[in-house]
Amino acid sequence: MYGSGGQIKDDDSAEDIKHVDLSCCHHLSGPIRVVDADGVPARPGDLLAVELCNLGPLPGDEWGYTGTFDRDNGGGFLTDHFPHATKAIWHFDGIYAASRHIPGVRFAGLIHPGLIGTAPSHELLKIWNDRERALVEGGEGGTTLGGVLHTRPLALLPEPKGALLGGIAAGSPDWARVASEAARTIPGRENGGNCDIKNLSRGCKALILRPEAPDGVRCDILRGGMEQYLTPMGPTKLHVHPIFEIGPLEPRYSEWLVFEGISVDEQGRQHYLDMSVAYKRAVLNAIDYLSKFGYTKEQVYLLLSCCPCEGRVSGIVDVPNAVATLAIPIAIFDQDIRPKHGGPPVGPRLLRRGDVARSTYDGDKPITLNPCLCGAGH
Amino acid sequence: MYGSGGQIKDDDSAEDIKHVDLSCCHHLSGPIRVVDADGVPARPGDLLAVELCNLGPLPGDEWGYTGTFDRDNGGGFLTDHFPHATKAIWHFDGIYAASRHIPGVRFAGLIHPGLIGTAPSHELLKIWNDRERALVEGGEGGTTLGGVLHTRPLALLPEPKGALLGGIAAGSPDWARVASEAARTIPGRENGGNCDIKNLSRGCKALILRPEAPDGVRCDILRGGMEQYLTPMGPTKLHVHPIFEIGPLEPRYSEWLVFEGISVDEQGRQHYLDMSVAYKRAVLNAIDYLSKFGYTKEQVYLLLSCCPCEGRVSGIVDVPNAVATLAIPIAIFDQDIRPKHGGPPVGPRLLRRGDVARSTYDGDKPITLNPCLCGAGH
Amino acid sequence: MYGSGGQIKDDDSAEDIKHVDLSCCHHLSGPIRVVDADGVPARPGDLLAVELCNLGPLPGDEWGYTGTFDRDNGGGFLTDHFPHATKAIWHFDGIYAASRHIPGVRFAGLIHPGLIGTAPSHELLKIWNDRERALVEGGEGGTTLGGVLHTRPLALLPEPKGALLGGIAAGSPDWARVASEAARTIPGRENGGNCDIKNLSRGCKALILRPEAPDGVRCDILRGGMEQYLTPMGPTKLHVHPIFEIGPLEPRYSEWLVFEGISVDEQGRQHYLDMSVAYKRAVLNAIDYLSKFGYTKEQVYLLLSCCPCEGRVSGIVDVPNAVATLAIPIAIFDQDIRPKHGGPPVGPRLLRRGDVARSTYDGDKPITLNPCLCGAGH
Amino acid sequence: MYGSGGQIKDDDSAEDIKHVDLSCCHHLSGPIRVVDADGVPARPGDLLAVELCNLGPLPGDEWGYTGTFDRDNGGGFLTDHFPHATKAIWHFDGIYAASRHIPGVRFAGLIHPGLIGTAPSHELLKIWNDRERALVEGGEGGTTLGGVLHTRPLALLPEPKGALLGGIAAGSPDWARVASEAARTIPGRENGGNCDIKNLSRGCKALILRPEAPDGVRCDILRGGMEQYLTPMGPTKLHVHPIFEIGPLEPRYSEWLVFEGISVDEQGRQHYLDMSVAYKRAVLNAIDYLSKFGYTKEQVYLLLSCCPCEGRVSGIVDVPNAVATLAIPIAIFDQDIRPKHGGPPVGPRLLRRGDVARSTYDGDKPITLNPCLCGAGH
Repeated sequence: MYGSGGQIKDDDSAEDIKHVDLSCCHHLSGPIRVVDADGVPARPGDLLAVELCNLGPLPGDEWGYTGTFDRDNGGGFLTDHFPHATKAIWHFDGIYAASRHIPGVRFAGLIHPGLIGTAPSHELLKIWNDRERALVEGGEGGTTLGGVLHTRPLALLPEPKGALLGGIAAGSPDWARVASEAARTIPGRENGGNCDIKNLSRGCKALILRPEAPDGVRCDILRGGMEQYLTPMGPTKLHVHPIFEIGPLEPRYSEWLVFEGISVDEQGRQHYLDMSVAYKRAVLNAIDYLSKFGYTKEQVYLLLSCCPCEGRVSGIVDVPNAVATLAIPIAIFDQDIRPKHGGPPVGPRLLRRGDVARSTYDGDKPITLNPCLCGAGH
Repeated sequence: MYGSGGQIKDDDSAEDIKHVDLSCCHHLSGPIRVVDADGVPARPGDLLAVELCNLGPLPGDEWGYTGTFDRDNGGGFLTDHFPHATKAIWHFDGIYAASRHIPGVRFAGLIHPGLIGTAPSHELLKIWNDRERALVEGGEGGTTLGGVLHTRPLALLPEPKGALLGGIAAGSPDWARVASEAARTIPGRENGGNCDIKNLSRGCKALILRPEAPDGVRCDILRGGMEQYLTPMGPTKLHVHPIFEIGPLEPRYSEWLVFEGISVDEQGRQHYLDMSVAYKRAVLNAIDYLSKFGYTKEQVYLLLSCCPCEGRVSGIVDVPNAVATLAIPIAIFDQDIRPKHGGPPVGPRLLRRGDVARSTYDGDKPITLNPCLCGAGH
Repeated sequence: MYGSGGQIKDDDSAEDIKHVDLSCCHHLSGPIRVVDADGVPARPGDLLAVELCNLGPLPGDEWGYTGTFDRDNGGGFLTDHFPHATKAIWHFDGIYAASRHIPGVRFAGLIHPGLIGTAPSHELLKIWNDRERALVEGGEGGTTLGGVLHTRPLALLPEPKGALLGGIAAGSPDWARVASEAARTIPGRENGGNCDIKNLSRGCKALILRPEAPDGVRCDILRGGMEQYLTPMGPTKLHVHPIFEIGPLEPRYSEWLVFEGISVDEQGRQHYLDMSVAYKRAVLNAIDYLSKFGYTKEQVYLLLSCCPCEGRVSGIVDVPNAVATLAIPIAIFDQDIRPKHGGPPVGPRLLRRGDVARSTYDGDKPITLNPCLCGAGH
Repeated sequence: MYGSGGQIKDDDSAEDIKHVDLSCCHHLSGPIRVVDADGVPARPGDLLAVELCNLGPLPGDEWGYTGTFDRDNGGGFLTDHFPHATKAIWHFDGIYAASRHIPGVRFAGLIHPGLIGTAPSHELLKIWNDRERALVEGGEGGTTLGGVLHTRPLALLPEPKGALLGGIAAGSPDWARVASEAARTIPGRENGGNCDIKNLSRGCKALILRPEAPDGVRCDILRGGMEQYLTPMGPTKLHVHPIFEIGPLEPRYSEWLVFEGISVDEQGRQHYLDMSVAYKRAVLNAIDYLSKFGYTKEQVYLLLSCCPCEGRVSGIVDVPNAVATLAIPIAIFDQDIRPKHGGPPVGPRLLRRGDVARSTYDGDKPITLNPCLCGAGH
């Protein structure tokens, strides 16, 4: 569940999602000046141990959404199967999240910040822009996954449209210069960023890097911690990744149903130890399975994008198949979703569960069809 | 931890690993005839709900090993960094596993079968052989990951050498025919197989498919369950994947240190949403980090290959970076591995922890060096 | 941690605790009118399923206290050992609670309402008053535990002083009548009340009984649920007890140190299957043990009164000893409190941890001394 | 679940329980000589850290029983409600225990040793015998609980009948002397003993005391650990209690139904902070509740005596009511036992679940009746 700067409404239409302006999506606070007890600011090379004391919706505003973007407007992980925009609204009842668009499930959510990070130096920014530009310039042919993961574009390069630059006066020369080279905040990177790690929730401690800019959060500065603890790997000493600690307050479910996926794509083609392909298959398998219990596939897709499921790298050694698993807690459903004699509910036992909001897909990109069901791929 | 048909010894040399004959590695029991209470055997299309009542080492034989194979003899996930054979022996003290080669860690293991599955039909076998052959014939250039994951060969095609064919008389025409078309058991596939899923442990229930062959384990037959519960995806109705249920007896650790990796490789190249690359980076980051606490990198690598860590698919939406995380339970170490002021132990506070057994690498393949440390990639 | 109507201050003196007016301690909200979706109010005989959606300190007021009352002003569980008033202030950092009076511990707290319940009928109120009066009139001799648990008085009978009667005009005849027969809210009773169950925290669902009075909380009415689900036991149909459901968000710690106690009191006298005596011994054992790690006994006593420890009824069958255990999560301490070779820290390794606020005990009641240390009981 | 020296059979009659000879119940191994790595034996004052590496039934003998003894032959916690002998046989399916006498429940058991301890010195033995004799001589009037907990006798004093004295020749003068002063092993005591703590399971480390006698288990000797870590409380330095550590392999259930009990007995009498009374009420409430789901009360009673439920000391401060809770994991049942609209299953929805084996009670002791149901107490 996430916000988009107020563009998304708590209603039953996905038109807002379909036409959302993703160039103006992450409204970030900061930068924040971090100083130690003596007032000495954090410096490049220090490690910031930021504790996420608490997180949650604003009182009176206890809702969020999950959605899939239109394939021609950003798409998503399974956009080749689900090219249309969809939306589900979630409301919080204290620790629980529930959606009128996906009845019959409720879970204790792991609320996480989505984005957290430090501002990059000019040198690190250039590294990002260079490598992402090289990817885009290589085109879809430059990556095997281009044929499997259809999210587009391949990367989002700096783009003045929609840039949010805080105190820099709009229209000034500075604005134009900065907007044209500032990194887009879509992906997670070495500075943390939009890592979207669900476990980075309340009570966790994130260890992030190289603050360039500064004012007053409660956090601990490990002086020189970057060099002490982290070994860069890559062309420069800036190629380091964050780490974090998880505390004892994650919701713990005891019974799980687990779906496997191997690195064979929907057309039956063998990929070499490809975890992205394997994970895509595990998620597709889960969607197909759960749709037998009264849900539409779109409902399950949106549910899996926010419930406390576990996507695991289960095997990445035994050629040629990577094995991914997706574990789903059984207790979040109001019916027993385990396989049993007689099969899933049918007839009057099968409760239809409504649907998410959805829009039409008006583009012309092919849909990935399931060959064995449809007799036709794309 | 796994066995290799008695080729590996409980000693302090990795020469047995270096020269292991992997053509004869998985000694499987079965096939087993499965019948229901009325004596009616399981049929293709049924779903077998196999409960793993118990699992463990044979009394008097409570040990196992972890190792990395020589790069010219199968290699492993990080073989481009660690091309030499290594070995660590683990002994069980009841629920705990400990290794004299990696002192100072101990954990409650998740004992799993590694391989579990059903025999394929001729049709499914042909699907496997065809798609894996296509991969091999495409060569390394046919896969982006060929330049990142250096495990070779790309796949193991049917190979008479080392084939274990049960009751078929060696030297007979049948033996030659079967050995030349039977699938190698290295990877997990649609039938289950060598999925190596750690969570598939005691008390779990695996749901596997299409028994072709049969005799007497305790398992439940869900008649017609394949069609009722599983939706094939791929060119045929045989393209389905197993699912399983996890029970309440997994070891549960409450505090974790988590390492991120993004899909930028060791040379700084950007990959597109590639979870295998991201996970490789997360594991490399964890190895570098933990090696600051008195361990060699080889010790950490072998530890991570068997301890109850969690490899997670954390983000696979935000282009171009996939985000993988590797979570390691803090309580398995006899020292506090969390980052703190002053950095990791140094001087007399740093306890050196010996090493795993290791052999030389006598091949000529290049090692992936860390450019920022070494000034030289490969 | 609890409040006392604003009498307790966030400071370093226990004088406020020493002189607290416990006749005016529980400031309760309600009664609340509960209606169903059709506006029909809950009736006697219904079961109210009240979900604790969220609980926590008011923003800007994130603190609480633990204390022990003076032996002559209410005392506490171990008042014969610790007759003086003490106080520790706890502040919340998001999910964690920490105290400047007990440094070196921090825990994810289980925030619970302390009191939750329904208003009694006149009949139930009379039952309470009658049985508690009988206890008081029997005197200390009427209970074996009178000589072991020194909290006094034995029960708190209706008392106009300090009564909080909501809308009833002070000084009116009604006020005098009601104040003289209304039950004191100190103990938990059939209606729920001050049960102080730590596990009744966020995400739980409490099932309570017989609402007499009413307006607008979110709760579910199980019509006739009392008779359907609960079997009274006692002289009347009103002798029923609440039940509740616990959800998946309790903090979960994985390693615990556990202290036993058996039903032999501090003087060595054998009691018959007495769990209160056994539990008192378990708590005393834990206090003595943890005080070897730099804490005063008063610090440990106050810590145990609010940290997520588990007091368990471990054995109540094997005559003559009841066995109680107190389990304490190891991870809440910043030092390793497990027993090891060489004993607890001494000399410079022993960190003294300050102390709680404490007052003098000016009364003349005897202290329970430990005969084997002091050569003198009371 | 426990054994009784082979007196109890895996059958469907409770006659063996009814006539069991409890004078010969605990067949113990040992004493065991404990030496350190240099061969120096453990000495009084040392602390033994004994790790329970593994525990379980003998292969081929995977069963146990739970039962209630006849009121005139030992009785049990609720013997005044259930005076007759009952028996349920449990079989293990790997980690799970299930009983044909209590269908529809299955749980991952916490297997524990029941008894573990060290041999007492003559001085400690005398302390036990003296204090337990004083209890017996005081008679039922000497303990409030005598009127509430009807298990008899109050304690089991030394008794030659049925004594198991290892290598001492039967009929010798030594045998007669030892048998007449050796403590019965029924209760837990300062040496550990029959503490029956369910959490003392696989992977735990028990810290026990004062070995008097010795040979060869794997355990760690903390020299002088008793004085370093444990503070005796009582007339002598021998009045200390064991502690233990719990590891990460307990079965973890995430959803629980919790039953309260307060210290008001079945006749409505108020007791003063009496946890044994409160716990008895919590257990009785749970039995009544669960019996609405197709079970007999005897089935529930035996189930609660071995399933992984949690008996908790929830409140022992607020006069006059102690509050005990009994938490039961919801997932062990094959039906949803939570309260909901419409009440428990009735008519064809109510599955009757058979019964435990049970015998007649032929004695003349009164049964505790529920006054509000029966119009008659005892």
